[in-house]
Amino acid sequence: MPTWEELYKNAIEKAIKSVPKVKGVLLGYNTNIDAIKYLDSKDLEERIIKAGKEEVIKYSEELPDKINTVSQLLGSILWSIRRGKAAELFVESCPVRFYMKRWGWNELRMGGQAGIMANLLGGVYGVPVIVHVPQLSRLQANLFLDGPIYVPTLENGEVKLIHPKEFSGDEENCIHYIYEFPRGFRVFEFEAPRENRFIGSADDYNTTLFIREEFRESFSEVIKNVQLAILSGLQALTKENYKEPFEIVKSNLEVLNEREIPVHLEFAFTPDEKVREEILNVLGMFYSVGLNEVELASIMEILGEKKLAKELLAHDPVDPIAVTEAMLKLAKKTGVKRIHFHTYGYYLALTEYKGEHVRDALLFAALAAAAKAMKGNITSLEEIREATSVPVNEKATQVEEKLRAEYGIKEGIGEVEGYQIAFIPTKIVAKPKSTVGIGDTISSSAFIGEFSFTL
Amino acid sequence: MPTWEELYKNAIEKAIKSVPKVKGVLLGYNTNIDAIKYLDSKDLEERIIKAGKEEVIKYSEELPDKINTVSQLLGSILWSIRRGKAAELFVESCPVRFYMKRWGWNELRMGGQAGIMANLLGGVYGVPVIVHVPQLSRLQANLFLDGPIYVPTLENGEVKLIHPKEFSGDEENCIHYIYEFPRGFRVFEFEAPRENRFIGSADDYNTTLFIREEFRESFSEVIKNVQLAILSGLQALTKENYKEPFEIVKSNLEVLNEREIPVHLEFAFTPDEKVREEILNVLGMFYSVGLNEVELASIMEILGEKKLAKELLAHDPVDPIAVTEAMLKLAKKTGVKRIHFHTYGYYLALTEYKGEHVRDALLFAALAAAAKAMKGNITSLEEIREATSVPVNEKATQVEEKLRAEYGIKEGIGEVEGYQIAFIPTKIVAKPKSTVGIGDTISSSAFIGEFSFTL
Repeated sequence: MPTWEELYKNAIEKAIKSVPKVKGVLLGYNTNIDAIKYLDSKDLEERIIKAGKEEVIKYSEELPDKINTVSQLLGSILWSIRRGKAAELFVESCPVRFYMKRWGWNELRMGGQAGIMANLLGGVYGVPVIVHVPQLSRLQANLFLDGPIYVPTLENGEVKLIHPKEFSGDEENCIHYIYEFPRGFRVFEFEAPRENRFIGSADDYNTTLFIREEFRESFSEVIKNVQLAILSGLQALTKENYKEPFEIVKSNLEVLNEREIPVHLEFAFTPDEKVREEILNVLGMFYSVGLNEVELASIMEILGEKKLAKELLAHDPVDPIAVTEAMLKLAKKTGVKRIHFHTYGYYLALTEYKGEHVRDALLFAALAAAAKAMKGNITSLEEIREATSVPVNEKATQVEEKLRAEYGIKEGIGEVEGYQIAFIPTKIVAKPKSTVGIGDTISSSAFIGEFSFTL
Repeated sequence: MPTWEELYKNAIEKAIKSVPKVKGVLLGYNTNIDAIKYLDSKDLEERIIKAGKEEVIKYSEELPDKINTVSQLLGSILWSIRRGKAAELFVESCPVRFYMKRWGWNELRMGGQAGIMANLLGGVYGVPVIVHVPQLSRLQANLFLDGPIYVPTLENGEVKLIHPKEFSGDEENCIHYIYEFPRGFRVFEFEAPRENRFIGSADDYNTTLFIREEFRESFSEVIKNVQLAILSGLQALTKENYKEPFEIVKSNLEVLNEREIPVHLEFAFTPDEKVREEILNVLGMFYSVGLNEVELASIMEILGEKKLAKELLAHDPVDPIAVTEAMLKLAKKTGVKRIHFHTYGYYLALTEYKGEHVRDALLFAALAAAAKAMKGNITSLEEIREATSVPVNEKATQVEEKLRAEYGIKEGIGEVEGYQIAFIPTKIVAKPKSTVGIGDTISSSAFIGEFSFTL
């Protein structure tokens, strides 16, 4: 029986040959600019005093719903610092956005699942991608790597595909300001128990899932040479604003389904329950979905499976039997053909169809994620090989045991109620250089990898 | 004694020869995009119903201070329609600006005194101008005419002057949305008694007199080849935000004064009294100021001349003696050397220095204004000749009589308390094609014209 190390080596060699054969992937919808500011205590204290310390402290006790004043901004940042907890709020006021822009940033990074996946698949794997960018300012365009990354433009009614850097529209910046602080960061008498970040999103487009005209009026034209699609960004919607965008997403899905183009939904925690419900209602139009335990539990809540939802969050590592049961319920309820579950330490995939290529795609994805965590950034498919040196997660053995006992899995593959279940232990990087965009790396690499193995 | 028609003809011929000799004018600070929307009843009614009719009607009874919701926007538009009265409010909420941008516009026009003057002086008269544009997006750049119009950019610390269309920054749109309606425009049971407009300003830059880095760090470099300067835009400030920009304006004035570059302040109605006061305090650093009766009256209020302020607004045409008295008080109080008063029907100029060129410059300005009103747009200096056919304002004769009786003016020129007073009747276009930017045309043409006659 091959060891996990051997399976890993075999998977990466297969992927290096097959992934470049994928000819076109559509990526929608959320792309934005992440502007990272490394907070400085003295600077932040001066700003808090200038804005009015008392009011700022008030908001650091209880977060506002959204940000309309500078003291609410500074108070929310202080809220995160005092607890070492992450938080994200919409910045509604333009003068506050003006203040944030003048406060500035230390580093700009690609943000939004679609944008991050475009750079990975197009810029690193060399797979041609067409990406939806709600607003393509020059600041946003410059965050795209070189490589076969395209945005559609309409020139006298005809769709033309160009690299984002060649786009010369006059569009706005969708900036998510990320205020980062290390463990022990001090502001007045407060000290951060853990490193974390507060995100102020100065973005009217991703937050309302604004979909560009090219993806509404000329979608069939845009996807002419596309073989796969990955959609994300629905999580930002609320019961007040989901209707219009959902109509467009459904019409896009209809066109993709007509052309039998497999579509993956990259799920993300969706605070609004009504929207979560609506996502479930359309999940049947997707071929595949990717999620973690928090997201899977939030879906079980909607399906009325409160007990199972609790189970999913009760153990570390997450109980694989509870995960499989939840995935079975989701698959039967919605008809989605592939569910890729990823948690820290192992992945599972439940599929309507059989084959080792499902497992091998998970292995390829885990290696890509490990390489990214190890190096902060990967620049080529071949570079992912270096992650084979990272040790396999030993804690996953107990998980494998449970699955073997319950479903008789062998070499990571088993059957349950007519579905295939595939399992892999992941590779754990002790001191990751960066964890940003890891989820998107995992899901997109697995989905593309699996498809490429069938070519 | 030459008739006004002869004086007009002589003035325009002089100006056509001399104005092109002016080598460089600096224009600061307010430039923005005017986006004009011609309202449609059915569309507006649908939007009001969707936003919530009751709440919209509430705001049409009493204007909010600023705009933070769509119903406040629609309510404020309805406020103007119901009264046929103009109003302007700051749009603070980004989602409302997003709504306005998607609602769109029918026409884009250059907005802001600096931008309008740049197109006139540079684009029509061919006088090289350097203009301050707070944010130079492509939408803004495309509103500049071709011609010697320059914006300064910093390239490795060095100032370079380029045409706005060559600027390739990634800057925001400062849009003033102008919702226009004709007389008799109907919305539900309401009907507009007169044509007018509501302006929603989606602009964080001009409203806070944001001054670009090039005009702060490298100002002396920027004005190397400048002979004159015209500044405007201070009117938008409030007691909360005037301090920082005023410091920069004062430092700019110091540099201009050191170089003995005459600076004209294009006054505009300044709602905030504290700011009006501060403008008076710096008026002595200006060579010249341009204003109308409403603005002059608002200044008299600050100087405690309540009675005179009332006098200025009590008669039609405005009483020229009250105007002269007010100008004398202003000149003595501040030391400003030239005051150009313009009202519908006549202009006056009070100057520390003597010479017919002051009057002739007023004549040139009045012709330029008439040509603009007649044609909507002028495209060359020579074209202004066509306005000589427009009749001189007969009602101004009674004004001339009063000035003759009081100050013994001859051919429009007289003396009072050591100052020269120059008077001209204007040319009245019965059905003006457009009145937008007329004030800026008058003031800048007169100031440049007068200077050009001394070359």
